[in-house]
Amino acid sequence: MIRPAPNIDAVPASTPFVGPEQLMRESGRSELVRLGANESAFGPSPKAVAAMSAELERLSWYGDPESYDLREALAAKHGCRTEELVVGAGIDDVMGLAVRAFVEPGATAITTRGSYPTFDYHVRGHSGHLAVVPYRDDGTVDLDALAEAAHRERAKIVYLANPDNPSGTFATRGEVERFAAALPDDALLFLDEAYADFVDEGELPPPGISDAVVRTRTFSKAYGMAGARIGYAIASQSNVQTFGKIRLQYGVNRNAQVGALASLADETFRERVVRETADAREDYYAIASELGMGHIRSRTNFVCIDAGSAQRANRIVKELLARGVWIRKPGAPPLDRYVRVSAGTPPMRRAFADALREIVASEAAA
Amino acid sequence: MIRPAPNIDAVPASTPFVGPEQLMRESGRSELVRLGANESAFGPSPKAVAAMSAELERLSWYGDPESYDLREALAAKHGCRTEELVVGAGIDDVMGLAVRAFVEPGATAITTRGSYPTFDYHVRGHSGHLAVVPYRDDGTVDLDALAEAAHRERAKIVYLANPDNPSGTFATRGEVERFAAALPDDALLFLDEAYADFVDEGELPPPGISDAVVRTRTFSKAYGMAGARIGYAIASQSNVQTFGKIRLQYGVNRNAQVGALASLADETFRERVVRETADAREDYYAIASELGMGHIRSRTNFVCIDAGSAQRANRIVKELLARGVWIRKPGAPPLDRYVRVSAGTPPMRRAFADALREIVASEAAA
Repeated sequence: MIRPAPNIDAVPASTPFVGPEQLMRESGRSELVRLGANESAFGPSPKAVAAMSAELERLSWYGDPESYDLREALAAKHGCRTEELVVGAGIDDVMGLAVRAFVEPGATAITTRGSYPTFDYHVRGHSGHLAVVPYRDDGTVDLDALAEAAHRERAKIVYLANPDNPSGTFATRGEVERFAAALPDDALLFLDEAYADFVDEGELPPPGISDAVVRTRTFSKAYGMAGARIGYAIASQSNVQTFGKIRLQYGVNRNAQVGALASLADETFRERVVRETADAREDYYAIASELGMGHIRSRTNFVCIDAGSAQRANRIVKELLARGVWIRKPGAPPLDRYVRVSAGTPPMRRAFADALREIVASEAAA
Repeated sequence: MIRPAPNIDAVPASTPFVGPEQLMRESGRSELVRLGANESAFGPSPKAVAAMSAELERLSWYGDPESYDLREALAAKHGCRTEELVVGAGIDDVMGLAVRAFVEPGATAITTRGSYPTFDYHVRGHSGHLAVVPYRDDGTVDLDALAEAAHRERAKIVYLANPDNPSGTFATRGEVERFAAALPDDALLFLDEAYADFVDEGELPPPGISDAVVRTRTFSKAYGMAGARIGYAIASQSNVQTFGKIRLQYGVNRNAQVGALASLADETFRERVVRETADAREDYYAIASELGMGHIRSRTNFVCIDAGSAQRANRIVKELLARGVWIRKPGAPPLDRYVRVSAGTPPMRRAFADALREIVASEAAA
């Protein structure tokens, strides 16, 4: 009889995120207002689309396994060396490598309970032990508790998303630096900066290359290339070499490399997306206030709106879906009383606001 | 101090395949005749290009993590169920999952020495023990020796590429079926059919879904989409579920899914590529004969030409590169006396033939 290895057999089946396509198949809908996955409603840069379009016929060639041209451009952007960058099929890919490289089976990884669930997925999938500390009630990451728990639990890797997902909150550069300094000497800080493009680079710590920190960025958010699967880590040369021993060397789509490179050169587009995203956040704050709901101020491309209870938040997500509007919500307390809506275009925001008004009105009528 | 987990620290640094871009950077060349990676010189299907082009602006949406539409089309093609298919970022991705799932650290995987090196890379990267048996001198896989060694070495996974890479040889349906039946009851057969599109489906075993076999296919070869990174496994529902616990759920490019689906619908294109590839093989056999060199008859999109010794084969690869023609060669005896050239367009084949003639002529003059 054929059985998987015991450690893999023991991994529970899980799906960090059910895709909207699955929800469409289940509901028989052919379209949804996509506001659930913090994708960019503003699309990829037209310059990236043009560059990728011109290269489609050469998709029969493998992409450069070193992503060299892209890494060179990224090194210039971040003021680091090409050897301090590794490109993967999205941050999820690089995160999996980091967990695999630093968390031996049975070792501990630590994160904030309810933060990005794909980290949890990788830890479980690599037979690691997941320790968690709760968010503060205001949606900020409890950096003191996280650092303290990292010592107590002898964590090999510490996950921090900044700006945070799903809360949207942001720890200042000073706070992150103090946090990093407070971690155990033998713990790796996995600093997930997926939403960094929505804050000013100056608000973030400088590259400060060290074996103790792996920072990740993505083209999935402000650059509008989530479907391309391309992200990267800024890390020490030694850590990049470690990832190089186990990464899928031909794992990144050739056209994703082409599009990412063209995107980097179109700063005007990214700035426009960042402005549009700020407008979207203000619209969401306004509709929340109008309906007597609180919100968490966000530094990302999504906003958490306070439904008061997890039960009501779940019901709102379900009722929105019934009206063709797809959002998600945090799964764990204390944030599970919120619904999380991604920045949309003005028509998408109106569709969300109208549906939410309708739901709240029908609650009042009930 | 931060160190990777000991098992990962112990993995040797290795690169299964240096990309041509690296060779171009080293040599200062801006172009190479790409005949080294068994890519398709005939490009992707124009229908796939059109479909992907139309969807580029929607690359800001994540692809369906279930690749459901594609799996439904593949289920129809193979006469299996959607639940018996898993899509990944190329066969390499699925192969990594299979090794991770079935080879616990220290367990044994077995393959033919010098066969597809990315399998070896995954086994080492997952702390497995790699056992090998040699090719037969005619370039065929020694199925009897492989099955026998699988028993002797208590292999958890047995790798067979059919048609084989790098030899190009092919085991018949009956041979493969007898081989599968001869394997240990608790060994998984990883049947890599990357080059299956160049033989008739009727020459291959029927799906015959079983926990004991994982079969893989790709859009990288006849379909001309190597740069897209998309391949899949046909496997038992139980094995698909196992992979589903550890795979990168959002790892496949959205446009790769779109292009693969459109490619499947363009059978005329694939048939034309298969015919052109057969012509290319004949051209390579002819130039080998003309230059007094043997060859291995191939059922794939590449041909191994006999240089007589590993030393001469290495020199030919180097001399071809100096003339702007990039090919690769098998690394291990007994096949290391061959050079391996991928099917090119007629001008690419002429460039190869002219360069090879020149090299052989200068050998004679020396």
